[in-house]
Amino acid sequence: MMSTRNEVVNTYPLSSYTFGTKEPKMEKDTSVADRLARMKLNYMKEGMRTSVEGILLVQEHNHPHILLLQIGNTFCKLPGGRLKPGENEIEGLKRKLTSKLGANSPALVPDWQIGECVATWWRPNFETIMYPYCPPHITKPKECKKLFIVHLSEREYFAVPKNLKLLAVPLFELYDNVQRYGPVISTIPQQLSRFQFKMITN
Amino acid sequence: MMSTRNEVVNTYPLSSYTFGTKEPKMEKDTSVADRLARMKLNYMKEGMRTSVEGILLVQEHNHPHILLLQIGNTFCKLPGGRLKPGENEIEGLKRKLTSKLGANSPALVPDWQIGECVATWWRPNFETIMYPYCPPHITKPKECKKLFIVHLSEREYFAVPKNLKLLAVPLFELYDNVQRYGPVISTIPQQLSRFQFKMITN
Repeated sequence: MMSTRNEVVNTYPLSSYTFGTKEPKMEKDTSVADRLARMKLNYMKEGMRTSVEGILLVQEHNHPHILLLQIGNTFCKLPGGRLKPGENEIEGLKRKLTSKLGANSPALVPDWQIGECVATWWRPNFETIMYPYCPPHITKPKECKKLFIVHLSEREYFAVPKNLKLLAVPLFELYDNVQRYGPVISTIPQQLSRFQFKMITN
Repeated sequence: MMSTRNEVVNTYPLSSYTFGTKEPKMEKDTSVADRLARMKLNYMKEGMRTSVEGILLVQEHNHPHILLLQIGNTFCKLPGGRLKPGENEIEGLKRKLTSKLGANSPALVPDWQIGECVATWWRPNFETIMYPYCPPHITKPKECKKLFIVHLSEREYFAVPKNLKLLAVPLFELYDNVQRYGPVISTIPQQLSRFQFKMITN
């Protein structure tokens, strides 16, 4: 009933891509407490928060790397964000990727190819902890976050907000590194392990 | 390009299934050292070991549970095993599932429906440690292990070898529990999080 071939994801060298800068994208909250308070306020207005994040893959030395946005010196996140009420996930992720990484000139913005959903995380309460399932007895989760593979073309231009750094982090650095990357990002290697990465060199 | 709907996996109550026993299936090795030595011998004869394991899902209290085989009082494993040289992955997994959980009477053996590959793990050396990617600079991995979802029908009969126990373990027990279940089994909740579980009650 199923093919035994693993799905192929083309990965191009980091050097295929061009990186520029653009105006800063400031975080909306200055503390975790502020963030959770804003989440609660939005929940009362709009119900469960749905967020979408993109996994952008490149390769170096024939090993897959993921593009992460670094804020300050330690905290890393995937590009993405919160959907508007009723917004389609794919369209919303494209909007967020453009906001985070697209050039100001529309002609230079990548034609984002959103691929497979690789993980879904649930926030049962207005707290930082999330789970890869909706915990039993939780009937009103506060957030559902979905991670999608983004298939990059061979050439792209990314404009990185001046207050952020864009890092290409190898899978072997993420794996088993929950201390540095948190539970969502540190288990991306396991979620991607079912794909066959086709390393394309120039 | 992709549907935003997550793939659906039907899960039936544990009480839908019937469990019997059959003759013991002894482990081939009595120690980890023996196991790694046998692996090395087989590698010299047949090359890289390929193994396949099945994730069999049931539900209790509307939460997904995975069927694990317990050996002794602590060690748990997924049903599955090593492919013969050249054997097809799907056919090999069916053979292994029948060997581990099928009744001796062929008419009672489930018609195994092997679904999606959810993870691939690599063993770079003749050691216990495995990774969800082939580590850089490893050109001759010693084992590749693939995990597949097995779609169960509403009713099945499982025959459990007398020296083993079959446990239905909830995702919330596996999650973040590498100490008890090891790196492969403890991250199954993340790998399954992209599916939508349809809980079917009788």
